[in-house]
Amino acid sequence: MKRSLAVVVALLLALAFSTLALASGPFVGEPKEEYYMVTFVSGIEYWKGCFAGMEDAAQLLGVKAIYTGAPQADVNQQVTVLEQVIAKSPAGIAVTCSNPDGLRAPIDKAIEAGIPVVTFDADSPLSKRYCYLGTGNYNAGAMAARYLAGLIGGKGEVAISTVTGQLNHEERKAGFIDTLAREYPNVKVVATGNDNNDQTIAATLVAGFLQAHPNLSGIFCTDALGGVGAATSVREAGKAGIVRIVSFDTDQGTLDLINEGIIDASIAQGTWNMGYWSMLMLFSVRHDLVKPVEGWQTKGINPLPGVVDTGTNVVTKENVEAFYVK
Amino acid sequence: MKRSLAVVVALLLALAFSTLALASGPFVGEPKEEYYMVTFVSGIEYWKGCFAGMEDAAQLLGVKAIYTGAPQADVNQQVTVLEQVIAKSPAGIAVTCSNPDGLRAPIDKAIEAGIPVVTFDADSPLSKRYCYLGTGNYNAGAMAARYLAGLIGGKGEVAISTVTGQLNHEERKAGFIDTLAREYPNVKVVATGNDNNDQTIAATLVAGFLQAHPNLSGIFCTDALGGVGAATSVREAGKAGIVRIVSFDTDQGTLDLINEGIIDASIAQGTWNMGYWSMLMLFSVRHDLVKPVEGWQTKGINPLPGVVDTGTNVVTKENVEAFYVK
Repeated sequence: MKRSLAVVVALLLALAFSTLALASGPFVGEPKEEYYMVTFVSGIEYWKGCFAGMEDAAQLLGVKAIYTGAPQADVNQQVTVLEQVIAKSPAGIAVTCSNPDGLRAPIDKAIEAGIPVVTFDADSPLSKRYCYLGTGNYNAGAMAARYLAGLIGGKGEVAISTVTGQLNHEERKAGFIDTLAREYPNVKVVATGNDNNDQTIAATLVAGFLQAHPNLSGIFCTDALGGVGAATSVREAGKAGIVRIVSFDTDQGTLDLINEGIIDASIAQGTWNMGYWSMLMLFSVRHDLVKPVEGWQTKGINPLPGVVDTGTNVVTKENVEAFYVK
Repeated sequence: MKRSLAVVVALLLALAFSTLALASGPFVGEPKEEYYMVTFVSGIEYWKGCFAGMEDAAQLLGVKAIYTGAPQADVNQQVTVLEQVIAKSPAGIAVTCSNPDGLRAPIDKAIEAGIPVVTFDADSPLSKRYCYLGTGNYNAGAMAARYLAGLIGGKGEVAISTVTGQLNHEERKAGFIDTLAREYPNVKVVATGNDNNDQTIAATLVAGFLQAHPNLSGIFCTDALGGVGAATSVREAGKAGIVRIVSFDTDQGTLDLINEGIIDASIAQGTWNMGYWSMLMLFSVRHDLVKPVEGWQTKGINPLPGVVDTGTNVVTKENVEAFYVK
């Protein structure tokens, strides 16, 4: 009877040990540990890719990732949402900023309360956030330039459809223009216009390009709706496959047009990367795994790298299937 | 007797279960899993900080980090060392490149053999490496500009001691000059010279600055030996504390001079970050934890962010103790 009891105790011990061990590694958190992603225009498809990366990482780490955000692109609305999140004292926050200065005060408040914060996709550079993870837009424009130049055999006339005055689009345009000038002197940018991130405006703009420049052989669109609009006009002018299009992002309209062969390629942003590496960084700070120098907390030392360029990839007919949101 | 056996079996089971569980989390590797750091001029103090970060992460992940490198700054020698490492089929490689083009072929060979490779500190941008982790030198120069401008009350004459023609130093200089021009119009750069990363040359150069510009109130040195040389001349001219010095890096000579109050501040690179995040990235690829898109391996998709700016911090008398290598 005593021995039976010993067997039972030993088996219970086995169970307890294994459970304990499962939850004891440095990269294993508590299921009740909550990390928030805070966005604006929170219903759009674009953020799904970002949150997928955060959720995947959270699952690997045994913690919880929660998505929230302001329904509109309204900075006051987003500040309210962020304040509500901070009030819950979460384990960490990844926030994309509808306005760099407007989000600064709540971000600093969270950091001062000991909540790790990183920004992703759109930064608040003067805030105390530990890291910004987003697309290096200048490099993204350079990637588009090289791909389009290759498609047209390294020579010819090209045009740009962009969103004038918006920093990320201006950077994409600059990277595109500079790279062509440096690496492809026989490719000339003959026209640039503002499509204001609107499909109809882009279609009108590009129709104008085609009329004014009958030898045009390529178009770079720095925004997805511009690409869809450009595709409409190129198709209507009977120039599909003759005027090559490199667009931006991977919403369904763009992917469908790549499948059809009207848009040749699009520059995909590293949205999954933004979420995955945000989560790993927040976890690493929360669990005190990062020690860039001893006692960084009290010495004005940032515990994380300052900026991550989450990178871009060229989407073409060959790999387009992988980019549809499952 | 039978029951005793049962107790022993149960206890063995407990042991086996707990071991199994310990080794079964997604962020737990095998002790025999070997990740290499490959450097050049492998004996210098600078790399110790980088490897410390890699070793700390390796320990957290339960894997092995191994340090090696070419004794000299000789690209052929480094290629040989890297080839020897590749021949061992390690789990991953973090390599700093003595020459961007010279290391390209072996890096590509490793990637094609399925060995994850990241570069750190010095990149090979045209290679197939998955990520580059290093200091954003332009931003580092901007940080130096802001700190020095603050020290001299936002106005006055400053000079630069740098290494002419070396990309990282040119970027630091550009970030310094551009930031002053944009944010501190009353601070004028009156002299710039090449110290060739040599303490004696820097001392002569800065002695000349002091003679030619009696109102000089600040010096930015883009390299550590330049800072030590500048400190010598400033002290000899009886201008310690009058001509403020912001230097670069955290070798012992620089830290000692900060302690003495001759050098006011130095820009510390995120060396520990380079090692820690290199290790987490290599592990994440090796263990198939990163899925930016399904099937990235066969679709020409980079599994990692392209570039990490590992950041910089300002070292002053207040926090200098934390930067001495333990």
